[in-house]
Amino acid sequence: MHKSQKLRELLQSPDVATAMGSASGLAAILAEQAGFDAVWSSSFEVSAFRGLPDTSLLTMTQYLAASVEVNRACGLPVIADCDTGFGNALNVAHMIHEYEAAGIAGVCIEDKVFPKVNSFSARGQVLEETEEFAHRIAVAKAAQSTPDLVVIARTEALIAGRGVGEALRRADAYASAGADAVLVHSKASTPGEIQEFLGRWSGAVPVVVVPTTYYDWPVDEMRQAGVALTIYANQALRASVSALRRTMTAIREAGCSATVEPEVASVKEIFEIQRLDDWLSLSR
Amino acid sequence: MHKSQKLRELLQSPDVATAMGSASGLAAILAEQAGFDAVWSSSFEVSAFRGLPDTSLLTMTQYLAASVEVNRACGLPVIADCDTGFGNALNVAHMIHEYEAAGIAGVCIEDKVFPKVNSFSARGQVLEETEEFAHRIAVAKAAQSTPDLVVIARTEALIAGRGVGEALRRADAYASAGADAVLVHSKASTPGEIQEFLGRWSGAVPVVVVPTTYYDWPVDEMRQAGVALTIYANQALRASVSALRRTMTAIREAGCSATVEPEVASVKEIFEIQRLDDWLSLSR
Amino acid sequence: MHKSQKLRELLQSPDVATAMGSASGLAAILAEQAGFDAVWSSSFEVSAFRGLPDTSLLTMTQYLAASVEVNRACGLPVIADCDTGFGNALNVAHMIHEYEAAGIAGVCIEDKVFPKVNSFSARGQVLEETEEFAHRIAVAKAAQSTPDLVVIARTEALIAGRGVGEALRRADAYASAGADAVLVHSKASTPGEIQEFLGRWSGAVPVVVVPTTYYDWPVDEMRQAGVALTIYANQALRASVSALRRTMTAIREAGCSATVEPEVASVKEIFEIQRLDDWLSLSR
Amino acid sequence: MHKSQKLRELLQSPDVATAMGSASGLAAILAEQAGFDAVWSSSFEVSAFRGLPDTSLLTMTQYLAASVEVNRACGLPVIADCDTGFGNALNVAHMIHEYEAAGIAGVCIEDKVFPKVNSFSARGQVLEETEEFAHRIAVAKAAQSTPDLVVIARTEALIAGRGVGEALRRADAYASAGADAVLVHSKASTPGEIQEFLGRWSGAVPVVVVPTTYYDWPVDEMRQAGVALTIYANQALRASVSALRRTMTAIREAGCSATVEPEVASVKEIFEIQRLDDWLSLSR
Repeated sequence: MHKSQKLRELLQSPDVATAMGSASGLAAILAEQAGFDAVWSSSFEVSAFRGLPDTSLLTMTQYLAASVEVNRACGLPVIADCDTGFGNALNVAHMIHEYEAAGIAGVCIEDKVFPKVNSFSARGQVLEETEEFAHRIAVAKAAQSTPDLVVIARTEALIAGRGVGEALRRADAYASAGADAVLVHSKASTPGEIQEFLGRWSGAVPVVVVPTTYYDWPVDEMRQAGVALTIYANQALRASVSALRRTMTAIREAGCSATVEPEVASVKEIFEIQRLDDWLSLSR
Repeated sequence: MHKSQKLRELLQSPDVATAMGSASGLAAILAEQAGFDAVWSSSFEVSAFRGLPDTSLLTMTQYLAASVEVNRACGLPVIADCDTGFGNALNVAHMIHEYEAAGIAGVCIEDKVFPKVNSFSARGQVLEETEEFAHRIAVAKAAQSTPDLVVIARTEALIAGRGVGEALRRADAYASAGADAVLVHSKASTPGEIQEFLGRWSGAVPVVVVPTTYYDWPVDEMRQAGVALTIYANQALRASVSALRRTMTAIREAGCSATVEPEVASVKEIFEIQRLDDWLSLSR
Repeated sequence: MHKSQKLRELLQSPDVATAMGSASGLAAILAEQAGFDAVWSSSFEVSAFRGLPDTSLLTMTQYLAASVEVNRACGLPVIADCDTGFGNALNVAHMIHEYEAAGIAGVCIEDKVFPKVNSFSARGQVLEETEEFAHRIAVAKAAQSTPDLVVIARTEALIAGRGVGEALRRADAYASAGADAVLVHSKASTPGEIQEFLGRWSGAVPVVVVPTTYYDWPVDEMRQAGVALTIYANQALRASVSALRRTMTAIREAGCSATVEPEVASVKEIFEIQRLDDWLSLSR
Repeated sequence: MHKSQKLRELLQSPDVATAMGSASGLAAILAEQAGFDAVWSSSFEVSAFRGLPDTSLLTMTQYLAASVEVNRACGLPVIADCDTGFGNALNVAHMIHEYEAAGIAGVCIEDKVFPKVNSFSARGQVLEETEEFAHRIAVAKAAQSTPDLVVIARTEALIAGRGVGEALRRADAYASAGADAVLVHSKASTPGEIQEFLGRWSGAVPVVVVPTTYYDWPVDEMRQAGVALTIYANQALRASVSALRRTMTAIREAGCSATVEPEVASVKEIFEIQRLDDWLSLSR
């Protein structure tokens, strides 16, 4: 079964599917081992790992390469965070051609103007007009060579302070334009506005959420509220930063790595993740 | 001052310079903040982060891109781990052209036959002939367009079980061929054979070590033994694996990320690493 | 129908299929318009267009990118010239994973030692041992995730002066190891040794030829001799060089481009090749 | 002397410098051999060679790679056609960081809104506001780490039908903001409006022209009119298309390549361009 079909099944299932943000093949392998259902190829994570801000500086080429890397490394379907679609309707069509040809299961584009700013930044959130963005969704769906690829329309209406009504109107327009699912993003510290959205949602297509700020809303309650897919978008990045800081500081202070040895994975464990023995067995 | 000059100064200084293996711009930024002197762009780390073994599967294009990423992200000089030089003397010359043009401070090539296997693997260590490898070092130095780029010759004689005498003969041949420094690698659990090497070394060029297995040899003792540069080659990778496993498992078990929040870096902390405010200030 | 299936049909057809070497998406579009059946993504052309020799300096990453570019630009199946397979059996398996995932219809690897030298060069032709190369073919076939991808085994026995008997022994070993076709290369100025090969060939798998030096052997005679596919491997490159030289010299001499205008394609013609109007129609 | 200094000298010289559009390392080598002074890394050519329209579909990553390829292949300074700067002021700063680090001599950005459409297309020409674009020029100059990189501001005022007065106002604003030169583009069939521009120009910075449509204006007259640099932006692309069409059709019709052999460069000639013998001499 193609990965995009796996992703469609996850979105249709009564369970809440879980996606782990993964900016490297390594993270994707570990996400699969930990039992997640899908990988989120996050523009925030990918840009942060390069030391650059999440403000449309990295290019589609770089984001696609990151998505391909995680897709090749694991058996999970990958949802690519494609920001605003990298420009206008032409860019969106080109994006669909490229991501589909690369075997990515799903893409997600958001209704902000290019170049965008990360949703958790206090500045610079400019929404695209609803009709224009719905047009881009229609162009995206028409650009697919097969019906498989999943296109998720993300509305930033709540991020931009436009309220649940506007979020619903936009989500409805995008679903009507052909979106396979809608992602409604929120930076509130509680799931209140997301719950209101879900309560009033038509159910036309599945709903995706990203509980970065309302992080104590458990999957069980999400299911009852009608969430189809939840994305842990940046915790892997943030865990990496903490671990790197702690380890690097400890080595500097001790003048050797002896004190960190008990905390870090062994070289043998890395070899297992890389499947080194399987690879070496290919030699005569 | 160009970064290759910085690296030359580090190698000449009476202090032991420290290099941190960094497979991403993010890791390089954190290494600089933690006070390391240089970045090691490790083929083991770069391949592991892609989920692939360290057996010459990744290409020079991919390793160069990884080196450029860390070089662009931080102010530290970068030493690129260039494995065997990616083939024969022609490949080595091409490698020098590309790494030099990309602004990398130093490159390191090792005296194994392409395709190589990671030095900590039990299998597959085949040494290149000394004369052929010395020729490649000479070709490398002749291929530079300016004298700046630092070329480090790494001998795997100890890894291959050939003993300290052979390591010394090879290091001497490579220094005579023009190497700016020699790296003598060991997978012993104590620094004994490295100490013997240093005790018998002519001092023709500085010596670099990688204390992965003999990890409790502190920098102070290295200085007295005559080490010029020590490389913490893979601890950042191994710390990342541990942190990702712990965080992903905790999220799966709790059904939300609430329990990991206190342990992971905040989104605000990521914004600071990305220098988001500096970037946003460029707008009118 | 997937492109690899198209390529299988071409190889099985009683007609001689024709492949045009194309180092750019543009060349592939023009090859399709001219009526060729397939595209050859030539390592000689790709390296020459970068200004580098065909001696394994370019990496698999670069050759794969070139193959993907031509594959995305046209509807023809693409056969990727993968040189020696980029190393040992592990490299070959990795190559298959990557080319298959990228949607390439077929790959061709040759029985020389990495790093190779172009077959028309007087120097440096070193054949791989038959058993080792047959092992790589078997590894390649086992590495496919579906049976579709076409693997062509190319023998350089005639190039290396080993004679038709050796070419037949090798071709037979590679077919037995699972190759979907064999390419027998020759740099003779007449098709004599190729004709002898075809006359003595078991017919186990289809035979591919590259009439660069024996260029006056027409397709009709190839069909009677049993050729399945003929590759015009470098004529597009060579025509480009002539045209660029002539045009550039004329502009330099005239101090303007007026004299070359009648000879070169119009801007409007370029727009048609780019399908500019189709793209612009995607806007609202 | 660094290539950006060479480019500065060309712009200051009383002679008209000539730049040849080159979308490959091969074209750049031939341009150097033909006696041109600089290479223009044209977004029109680079996108057309990929079979894609010149409408901001290709990314900065792809254009930068094309510029690096031509820069590495020849000794001429390269001017990179950077379209609109790939977004807003942040994108422009990032672009400068990347092109400067890659050793490109000069960049050119134009005062249209991202995503752009090729200037010779009848549709879609939307000018950026003068103040915003002047701000981007100032950001670009401030983003350089050394003063070397040449930043050329291109106005599309004439392309957009705004007249010579508007072109002069914009060119003046961009020069005041720090541009090292201005490029004034025209799609008229005679040089009339360009000559008017030059006659009324303050001379604050050198002026660059692109005589694609007014192709019979010779260099001698340009010099008298005050042109510093003329760019033959797409003739190499257009010559390649004609040559490929003619050659491919001839091979298809003849069923062999015998008839094209006298017209195309020999394999030996390609080897010389690749400097194969020089490379092979690096072996022991």
